[in-house]
Amino acid sequence: MISKKQLSFLKSLQIKKYRQLHQCFLVEGAKSVLELLDSDFILENLFVTQDFYQNHTPLLQNLDYQLVSEDELMQAGSFESNNACIAVASTKANVFLQAADKETVLVADAIKDPGNFGTILRIADWYGIQKIIGSEDCVDFYNPKVIAASMGSFTRVQIFYSSLPAYFLEVKPENLFGAVLEGENLHHISFPQQLYLVMGSESQGISHEITRLLTQKITIPRFGKAESLNVANATAIICDNLRRSQI
Amino acid sequence: MISKKQLSFLKSLQIKKYRQLHQCFLVEGAKSVLELLDSDFILENLFVTQDFYQNHTPLLQNLDYQLVSEDELMQAGSFESNNACIAVASTKANVFLQAADKETVLVADAIKDPGNFGTILRIADWYGIQKIIGSEDCVDFYNPKVIAASMGSFTRVQIFYSSLPAYFLEVKPENLFGAVLEGENLHHISFPQQLYLVMGSESQGISHEITRLLTQKITIPRFGKAESLNVANATAIICDNLRRSQI
Repeated sequence: MISKKQLSFLKSLQIKKYRQLHQCFLVEGAKSVLELLDSDFILENLFVTQDFYQNHTPLLQNLDYQLVSEDELMQAGSFESNNACIAVASTKANVFLQAADKETVLVADAIKDPGNFGTILRIADWYGIQKIIGSEDCVDFYNPKVIAASMGSFTRVQIFYSSLPAYFLEVKPENLFGAVLEGENLHHISFPQQLYLVMGSESQGISHEITRLLTQKITIPRFGKAESLNVANATAIICDNLRRSQI
Repeated sequence: MISKKQLSFLKSLQIKKYRQLHQCFLVEGAKSVLELLDSDFILENLFVTQDFYQNHTPLLQNLDYQLVSEDELMQAGSFESNNACIAVASTKANVFLQAADKETVLVADAIKDPGNFGTILRIADWYGIQKIIGSEDCVDFYNPKVIAASMGSFTRVQIFYSSLPAYFLEVKPENLFGAVLEGENLHHISFPQQLYLVMGSESQGISHEITRLLTQKITIPRFGKAESLNVANATAIICDNLRRSQI
């Protein structure tokens, strides 16, 4: 059973203000919760169905959990259906990150759509990128839709939110690459080993202030007539080219 | 004003059975409708707000349209908000397609999610791929969410639905490439000029029956730890590699 008080707590975590207040976030569904339990995030609460319990009894042996119904999970969470589990975990502190030697760092400039941002985390994780810098107006990493779309990759990437101009003033990146409409053909670019790659918002692209700072503007070559690509697809294509070129 | 009869007709077009019965489909929002009006699709009805009318008066001069309110558009369509327009257009006949000389054709094997499939149409259009073969259990091209996610690219790609085994028996493709988990590294593959590229379903990948027929199995190299990539992202990455290699 989920108590009324717990239900109201869980529902509050769909809102950024309450996630910040409680320093907690929601993780929903079997895949994401299993990745959470295998990570260094601190688990606060765990609600599981009988079904999930039966499939993962050894894993749950040393954990506090509550048995709940599917209906309760659907009421408490953001998923349309969830026959497995919901976890609450502690958010991490917003700790300064920068590129180590030979490291690629992804920079999200005002990415607003949680589905896109979660997918970008998954792409970063696929391509072995572990650090993300988010602008202050970028969607919250701990938004339940970001967590869900990342398919567990939220456990393997670190996020640091910052004013991007202030951040770049501090780290003074030697290689600041960004995806723009009128840049150099991606297929002709050699990517250095240490790199910041900026991806801009769905509607506006990279902000003017940051565009001015780019050391290399890159453009995905177009062979047909679509006006643009979705920002997650663009990130995937650029990361693939980057890893191919860095080897 | 949208009449009751019209409203029930428009709402019915959210369901495949009624799209097939009426041989019509919905196009929603300014971007998609403008692309529709610039295409060879036959327009059946057009509902526009005062706002859209004012911004596009010359374009509407020779067209039949009805002025409606935003509320009516939201009631009639599938969008959460729509301050512009909804069009009804005729679906096209399911006409046999095959790869011309030096042409790349995309094959969608049981892609189920309309957002993914619409995004794949947009990617195909970006990379100049104009023909898509869909398996019989692939999501309907005319699903309003497919149309919306394609961002107008539905007007520039053609679709042919078929049983894939029967289709391949007929066209006997020389180069049948497909994305699988244990294939050759995408970065090491030379893509021929004439090519069928198969992308499989989100959960199952390419069906066994089709996997057997592939002349080249390809895998996107992974540098990190994510288990998989979204099928639209995978399509984007492979199409980018394909165009780079075909030049």
